Amino acid sequence: MSLPVIRLRPREDRRLRAGHLWVFSNEIDCDTTPLTAFTPGDAVQIESAHGRCLGVGYVNPRSLISVRIVSANPHAVIGRDLLVARLQEALAWRERLYTAPFYRLAFGEADGLPGLVVDRYGDALVAQFTTAGMERLKTDVIEALDQVVRPTSILVRNDTASRALEGLPSYVEAALGEPPAEVTVVEGDCRFRVALGVGQKTGWFYDQRPNRTRLLPYVAHARVLDLFSYVGGFGIQAAAHGADHATLVDASDRALSYARGNAADNGVAAQIATVHGDVFEVLRELRAAGERFDVVVVDPPALIKRRKDYEAGLGAYQRLNEAALAVLGAEGVLLSASCSYHLERHTLARVVAQAATRLRRAIQFADEGGQGPDHPIHPAIPETAYLKAFVARSLSVL
Amino acid sequence: MSLPVIRLRPREDRRLRAGHLWVFSNEIDCDTTPLTAFTPGDAVQIESAHGRCLGVGYVNPRSLISVRIVSANPHAVIGRDLLVARLQEALAWRERLYTAPFYRLAFGEADGLPGLVVDRYGDALVAQFTTAGMERLKTDVIEALDQVVRPTSILVRNDTASRALEGLPSYVEAALGEPPAEVTVVEGDCRFRVALGVGQKTGWFYDQRPNRTRLLPYVAHARVLDLFSYVGGFGIQAAAHGADHATLVDASDRALSYARGNAADNGVAAQIATVHGDVFEVLRELRAAGERFDVVVVDPPALIKRRKDYEAGLGAYQRLNEAALAVLGAEGVLLSASCSYHLERHTLARVVAQAATRLRRAIQFADEGGQGPDHPIHPAIPETAYLKAFVARSLSVL
Repeated sequence: MSLPVIRLRPREDRRLRAGHLWVFSNEIDCDTTPLTAFTPGDAVQIESAHGRCLGVGYVNPRSLISVRIVSANPHAVIGRDLLVARLQEALAWRERLYTAPFYRLAFGEADGLPGLVVDRYGDALVAQFTTAGMERLKTDVIEALDQVVRPTSILVRNDTASRALEGLPSYVEAALGEPPAEVTVVEGDCRFRVALGVGQKTGWFYDQRPNRTRLLPYVAHARVLDLFSYVGGFGIQAAAHGADHATLVDASDRALSYARGNAADNGVAAQIATVHGDVFEVLRELRAAGERFDVVVVDPPALIKRRKDYEAGLGAYQRLNEAALAVLGAEGVLLSASCSYHLERHTLARVVAQAATRLRRAIQFADEGGQGPDHPIHPAIPETAYLKAFVARSLSVL
Repeated sequence: MSLPVIRLRPREDRRLRAGHLWVFSNEIDCDTTPLTAFTPGDAVQIESAHGRCLGVGYVNPRSLISVRIVSANPHAVIGRDLLVARLQEALAWRERLYTAPFYRLAFGEADGLPGLVVDRYGDALVAQFTTAGMERLKTDVIEALDQVVRPTSILVRNDTASRALEGLPSYVEAALGEPPAEVTVVEGDCRFRVALGVGQKTGWFYDQRPNRTRLLPYVAHARVLDLFSYVGGFGIQAAAHGADHATLVDASDRALSYARGNAADNGVAAQIATVHGDVFEVLRELRAAGERFDVVVVDPPALIKRRKDYEAGLGAYQRLNEAALAVLGAEGVLLSASCSYHLERHTLARVVAQAATRLRRAIQFADEGGQGPDHPIHPAIPETAYLKAFVARSLSVL
């Protein structure tokens, strides 16, 4: 059974030949293969202007990204067997990397699964479908996950904002078993309870795991300030690794309530304080009060969500990093992260460096990192690399 | 006592105001402050065209980098007290980072010590002076090191090629005590004997330490190929962490002799083989013989030493990475590094990605890293960030 064809305009096949998996609407020869002939999620074959097959994928005429290629093999069938093979390969990698079953199991394009993200919390899975094409495969995906992972439950968290770009509705449902309201994540020596159905993202930010570890050499006997703390990932691990004290700041009362529970569960309740409020506002108050910290963690949500937010978002990163540096002690350590794809790595470094210059502080960059290896990066799709974190040390002498 | 002045041409102070520490000859107003008036190593004060003091440093009329600023404080005295203060700050950082005294103790500009590199091997120090200004301070530096670290010996390895750019002679000397011919480096669970007076660099490549650790999650039961192995840093740690076998390839017979000794010292002699030869030639033979490895490490010396070598060096990185990928098994892991400052991070990623495309192999980037935190990066001096390493996973399905 051959698939309907979408043909590209001349010379629009170069990015795909280099391995990218996205086709934008303006790259399609809509005279010969009009997008209007398709409904969201239809499987298609992609051809160059010369009629050479570039692979098979699925289409969404309503999205700026009109086609996502799923396989360069023209004979590939986009269905359960393919999903099972890719999930097996994704699982094999995570099992090689981690001793405990807590990780991002599938990371979209980078794992050959455009439009699908799956996080694993032991026997509980949380899946997100972010494209019409993957949404249409939902039954196959759930069956494939069941076959490959044998989980006790799968929660579908289809309430991400990006679904609106694909014209998809927002909902949350149990797709297998009875998903627990709450799970316990094991990371390093610590345990964290998180809510699955209501929290941020799927419940836990696995992407920051290597950066949380990256901070640990600097926390002994430190006073730590954990900004945008969520349920305490950075601050509680710091306390468990010898920090004298950690102040967790977040705008979500619910997250801080979990953070307090997690601090108690890890035996560090006495070392943890939570502050409910706007981080910018709290930083102003801390600075005015002359408070200084040995370690400050800046881990905001994406402040640049779309390219058009760039200037405003860049300004927010600048104000935030300057305010954070202003409460850092003379020989302190700042960990500054950004999960905004549109903020490039070297720009974040410059933001931190310029904040130091404005405050007449000398710094060194001691370390830097990105998302963990359970969030692999597709070599031809820069959009799959989004997280960066810098560790800066404040110098007293220079 | 005021220092002689070097004045900049109009608008040439911007880079310095941003924190950079170098002044190039074409930025100097040689009409009012001719460089010919100075001898290499003279201490000077730097002024903007408007007469604003930008700091104090030292000059070398024979070098492209005419002045290196040592302090932005116009009243700073470049001498023993300043060296002691900076070395103390450098030491405090390393003692916070490492439990054992094995690290780069001072990393030039990033530690406020332009022209000075010091590696620590327990009680033995190895120092390199790479500028005329720091060379002139040698007695002060040795005394400051003695005071701050209390080592039993200091070996001066002033035989690096870069000294020629400053018009400095090449020599090796014992500056304190009796430097041992050989030391034992402790890294992770392993111990490595290295020669201090004759080996590459100062004896050990501390900069790759985090990347050697980065490789360990992938080595269980693996056949490892360690290219440009030197004394076995990657391969022997891999064997000690569960690799079935590691083949070490290097052009230096002496390095491989140390590697075999180190394998025996770490109880993994039976898992290690050494191959003496040119890496490109050895890769051709391995490929022709159909050999495949689960993990391949590509850690060449700088293949682009100067900007004018860029094209030739880039070609060498391309051939090398393609040849390495060609002997990587279907689900293998490649760690590809470059210590060439002129090869940018994203260019190395592209080199690996394009090698995969040419070989029709699908890969993911799983992780990436740079130089360790004992090689801090000066935020305004990109030249202090030189090492990058990517971990790529070969995929069978995509």
